[in-house]
Amino acid sequence: MMPESVLRKAAEEMLNYNGSGQSVMEMSHRSPVYDAIIKETEALFRKTLSVPDNYKVLFLQGGATAQFSAIPLNFMNGSGKADYIISGQFSKKAFKEAQKYGDVKAIASSEDATFSYIPKITREDIRPDADYVYVCYNNTIFGTTFPYIPDTGDIPLIADMSSCILSGPIDVSKFAVIYGGAQKNMGPAGLTVVIIREDMLGKARDITPVMMDYAVQAENDSMYNTPPTYAIYIHKLILEWVNNEIGGIENMEKVNREKAAILYDYLDSCKLFKPTANKEDRSLMNVCFVTGDKELDALFCKEAAAEGFVNIKGHRSVGGMRASIYNAMPTEGVKKLVEFMKAFEAKHQ
Amino acid sequence: MMPESVLRKAAEEMLNYNGSGQSVMEMSHRSPVYDAIIKETEALFRKTLSVPDNYKVLFLQGGATAQFSAIPLNFMNGSGKADYIISGQFSKKAFKEAQKYGDVKAIASSEDATFSYIPKITREDIRPDADYVYVCYNNTIFGTTFPYIPDTGDIPLIADMSSCILSGPIDVSKFAVIYGGAQKNMGPAGLTVVIIREDMLGKARDITPVMMDYAVQAENDSMYNTPPTYAIYIHKLILEWVNNEIGGIENMEKVNREKAAILYDYLDSCKLFKPTANKEDRSLMNVCFVTGDKELDALFCKEAAAEGFVNIKGHRSVGGMRASIYNAMPTEGVKKLVEFMKAFEAKHQ
Repeated sequence: MMPESVLRKAAEEMLNYNGSGQSVMEMSHRSPVYDAIIKETEALFRKTLSVPDNYKVLFLQGGATAQFSAIPLNFMNGSGKADYIISGQFSKKAFKEAQKYGDVKAIASSEDATFSYIPKITREDIRPDADYVYVCYNNTIFGTTFPYIPDTGDIPLIADMSSCILSGPIDVSKFAVIYGGAQKNMGPAGLTVVIIREDMLGKARDITPVMMDYAVQAENDSMYNTPPTYAIYIHKLILEWVNNEIGGIENMEKVNREKAAILYDYLDSCKLFKPTANKEDRSLMNVCFVTGDKELDALFCKEAAAEGFVNIKGHRSVGGMRASIYNAMPTEGVKKLVEFMKAFEAKHQ
Repeated sequence: MMPESVLRKAAEEMLNYNGSGQSVMEMSHRSPVYDAIIKETEALFRKTLSVPDNYKVLFLQGGATAQFSAIPLNFMNGSGKADYIISGQFSKKAFKEAQKYGDVKAIASSEDATFSYIPKITREDIRPDADYVYVCYNNTIFGTTFPYIPDTGDIPLIADMSSCILSGPIDVSKFAVIYGGAQKNMGPAGLTVVIIREDMLGKARDITPVMMDYAVQAENDSMYNTPPTYAIYIHKLILEWVNNEIGGIENMEKVNREKAAILYDYLDSCKLFKPTANKEDRSLMNVCFVTGDKELDALFCKEAAAEGFVNIKGHRSVGGMRASIYNAMPTEGVKKLVEFMKAFEAKHQ
């Protein structure tokens, strides 16, 4: 979902951005008017997430999948070893891709319990010569999120935050690299935002495709080649919405906590539905639940879809239900879903 | 530039695509409504460019720069040799990137004459064991385009058509791979369309990032990961415009020839301005010219900008002027530019 005010503004400005007489889609990425857009976007992103000065913010393409390769190519540059915490399908994919490039170890995994919890690790679990530790912070399919920031000591911690970035404040200084595909909370598919500590730059392997060399992108302020100009503009509108309409990133988190609580409180108190994620690892973005009866799950999904609750069906790998309540989902929408669930429960108890 | 009718339609449908109640930006790429969009886009693209059945059409990310790496990673898989024709800055960049991965030879170059012409090659110029021959078909900065399709025999011919694709018909069967970034004629930046003969697939090197493995993308119908969904939708609107408003790809070329002729006829007959590209290699998309006097060039660019002719300044590497008259530029716009040039000439002769 996207905030309606963002879509309205995008529609209004489609033929004429800010009096320029041009659509943002038509602008040369080298034009002064577009240059102002990308610079304002970066400044607003930095301010919103309090990004420290020794971090670069990059606007790239390719989603998490491109980062799965770019990360080992750029950072597996010392011992050639990297340690991964496997907490869901996306960390598993990242782990698999990194195996192309070096000695990759899964130092913890919750696959034994269908990724229903977040593994706990300590410094002792990490190989002392690992080039980095990799985590996927929020696991969309399984409805879990890291309740702690792993302590990796001096070893760089790298996090995929695709499905939670911009949902609340982050202590960026605890990470060497954070990245997120835009399509959950930050804008349209096709934009990936990377936050990278400057000392991480400049050590990519010789075989790194130039598009994936973070140092090249940083030196060129994300303009080594044509960036996804329109997606960056929409990201700017979203950042303006978080700051001006929601009241900032702390408020965004407050709203998200309230929304999630409405669902989890009901799930904890009802008899028909059961939440699937370990309680302390619950995601604020993706709420997964089941009835315990596959036919009843299917009936619920069917009736929910008929009522306009789209995409409530769980991922095909786990079944059940998943309510994705990203930033743009209004509290009212969550309340309506709970009302619908209550009515369904009353009928099927 | 984008056709105004496309922008109007995009604005109209921003909050509600085709009665779905959703913006295309909000749709899951796995939803039936989005699936219909991407399938219709592919079908329309195939029809428009008469793409033969033994070619796949892929909707990817990363622009030409990502392809510069993906091409050697996927296709430099026999002798490890590849031959490049250097006709401008983009083939030079592609050539440089390919050197990371194998034995790359520049079999012809027009750099000695500031890329003002297209080198002629014959089969004898190609190494018989080359894995492929690479060309950049239209050279944006220098205003040249290939007036012939190189005869490479059985050796696959790969073409970057970023700045001319969709400007007219192409005999796809003469190429093994054709690709184009969308931002000139096909849609917003952030979408890259690749046309690839099926026998080229499945031989990528082990170190190929999964996003760059064409076989993986082909097997997953461009949905291995989230594609740039909104850019693909805009591409669909552009294809509809070419077919329904222009009257098809042959008419598109006719219009482009007429527009370019207005400019070139004036340039050939006037005294002040001189076209810089070799006559038989002239691009229909980018018309480059100079006065021969740098100060006068600068004055022309300044006065033209004041009259609303944006981006008329030549690329910083060559100076002079460049009129980019892509598909969406109306004939009227070209006529106005020529009127302005005539008036400037009258003042400065």
